[in-house]
Amino acid sequence: MTDNARSGLDIDVGNRCSRVAWDWSRTTLAARQGKPGASWGHLEASFASLLDFGGVRIGITSDGIGTKIELAERVGDYSTLGWDLTAMVSDDLAANGIEPTNLSNILDVDRLDERIVSELLEGLANATRESGIAIAGGEIAELGARVGGWGDRMHFNWCATAIGVLPAGVDPVDGKAVAVDDVVVSVKERGFRSNGFSLVREVMEGAFGEAWHEAPYDGSQSWGRVLLTPSRVCAPLVAGLIAAGVVPHGIANITGGGIPDKLGRVLKVKQLGASLGSLHEPLPFMRALSDLGVVRDERAYRMWNMGNAMLLVLAPGDVARACATATELGFETRAAGHVTADPVIRIAAPHGDLAYPTPARTAAAERG
Amino acid sequence: MTDNARSGLDIDVGNRCSRVAWDWSRTTLAARQGKPGASWGHLEASFASLLDFGGVRIGITSDGIGTKIELAERVGDYSTLGWDLTAMVSDDLAANGIEPTNLSNILDVDRLDERIVSELLEGLANATRESGIAIAGGEIAELGARVGGWGDRMHFNWCATAIGVLPAGVDPVDGKAVAVDDVVVSVKERGFRSNGFSLVREVMEGAFGEAWHEAPYDGSQSWGRVLLTPSRVCAPLVAGLIAAGVVPHGIANITGGGIPDKLGRVLKVKQLGASLGSLHEPLPFMRALSDLGVVRDERAYRMWNMGNAMLLVLAPGDVARACATATELGFETRAAGHVTADPVIRIAAPHGDLAYPTPARTAAAERG
Repeated sequence: MTDNARSGLDIDVGNRCSRVAWDWSRTTLAARQGKPGASWGHLEASFASLLDFGGVRIGITSDGIGTKIELAERVGDYSTLGWDLTAMVSDDLAANGIEPTNLSNILDVDRLDERIVSELLEGLANATRESGIAIAGGEIAELGARVGGWGDRMHFNWCATAIGVLPAGVDPVDGKAVAVDDVVVSVKERGFRSNGFSLVREVMEGAFGEAWHEAPYDGSQSWGRVLLTPSRVCAPLVAGLIAAGVVPHGIANITGGGIPDKLGRVLKVKQLGASLGSLHEPLPFMRALSDLGVVRDERAYRMWNMGNAMLLVLAPGDVARACATATELGFETRAAGHVTADPVIRIAAPHGDLAYPTPARTAAAERG
Repeated sequence: MTDNARSGLDIDVGNRCSRVAWDWSRTTLAARQGKPGASWGHLEASFASLLDFGGVRIGITSDGIGTKIELAERVGDYSTLGWDLTAMVSDDLAANGIEPTNLSNILDVDRLDERIVSELLEGLANATRESGIAIAGGEIAELGARVGGWGDRMHFNWCATAIGVLPAGVDPVDGKAVAVDDVVVSVKERGFRSNGFSLVREVMEGAFGEAWHEAPYDGSQSWGRVLLTPSRVCAPLVAGLIAAGVVPHGIANITGGGIPDKLGRVLKVKQLGASLGSLHEPLPFMRALSDLGVVRDERAYRMWNMGNAMLLVLAPGDVARACATATELGFETRAAGHVTADPVIRIAAPHGDLAYPTPARTAAAERG
């Protein structure tokens, strides 16, 4: 997660580093040409790679949960981060129609605390199992002072790689099929995913000082506890839709950069836009956080998911079946708007309408 | 890399954490039963998992390069670590006969330095390309104070997941075929792999103080430069052997714990031993380091590879062909000894013979 949503980040150097990494990676593709593991072709608007193993198409992607970990350290609850980690990697596969099957995780720690390790892995096991994913490996590395964090307990960084399979006979979802008047269906999120936490910290520190996590959010919960709310894992919904014969035209996993960036990556493929008049409302604690920090909507929608975990771009005739399938699978969805010829993403936000131009389709923007 | 070779480590808590992680992971296997990504079966003596995708058998493993990174930070040369990272993951697949095909890497940094990122990725691209592996993705995460290291430049931790394919018709190499009088062929290493660096640091600091990396090793090189020598990537040799019809009975990738631990894991499957009278000699700088730190052979062979990157356990009739194939592929090999009925690993070391009992075959020892 190159956390573009972070406050104070030099986005340019981040983009340049992603670009240079991608350029070096491309020099290795020929090593597998004509062999198992050959690139199946470039996926536009994607954070995953698709590989060909004798006709079996395997997707792969890697990510981590960044600085959301500090919340678990502050609150002392390590049981929920597994959902965040599962969501970060599996939903980047799902965004291309790939069904995540297995996950391998790497836990870097300064020193080991068996209780914390167990709580983390229990959460990951629960999250993957409930998402139809099997953990296929992992590594715990003790790195001493190379790993830091908040407070006196074990510090850690946590990342994973997920692999999955593109169902036989299905083309990868990559935005090429998106058309004007397609319907954008939004899947409701319950928390922050693992993005935008530097801005969260900045706001919270400004409002409540160093021990901000202890500040009461409401009668029953602290701010720390609320901000720790785990991600929804949307991959089972995408797999369920495809199994039901509904292949989305485009899928945006709303992570760093929010809807403007992530839906923008999908829409730029055909240089289209979207009018989103009825997204899920920002979660109450996101609104409260925006108010505390005087974060304007324009910025908040670029930083946070604002209550929308994933956007599905669907043929109008598929919407009813998609929403019914989502309900069956326990996901709350709503028709949030539609695709427009005008290459601008328009959002009806709490304090008025927002407009974000769809990014230009450049070679450099195809990956990052 | 749970760096069991580290000096001063509480190995018990490391083993317990690996065990608890594995126990939680197993609770997720049922999530893929009968579906793509189902476990193909438990691999004994393995750090990889083997998954079934409609008859295509995909292996997966994750690892990092631990604290060897400090050497690059001290020397200011970031071009070689890619070989270490490639070796750590691809050779754990190769140890089961799996041909690594693709690698996805995650680079955690405190802050970005474009020049260092480029140098790291260039090295990784060179290492993977030359090893027949294509990079299939990656992630760069800016984590601020969650990442630390030596000196004033960008600090980072680096890990990867590799996937690969088990050639059709070949059983996974898991030690079950090992028999008395099999020949142990050793593949020569040129450097430390990514293990045992805490002991390296301890010795170097004791001998030369904080700026130990600048101490002259010989007329042309500093100690820091010598210790940074990159790993050999042995996976192409294993793939070449299998392509030539030589399937090893067992393969030990000599990482943390050295030959006693890693060959021990292979030999414990049949409760056999080995007599290793003619391993590759310890690399000169490993001998010099042992002398500096008064590290006895018994400990050094448990900490470091001592010049042996990988041990191949072969049917006697396969040895000539295996060594010829190795020479063709640019690997230096030698017949190092043979498998014995006595469950002890005997090593002819510079200062006399060493004997390490083959570990008992317990459920808890099957993974970790």
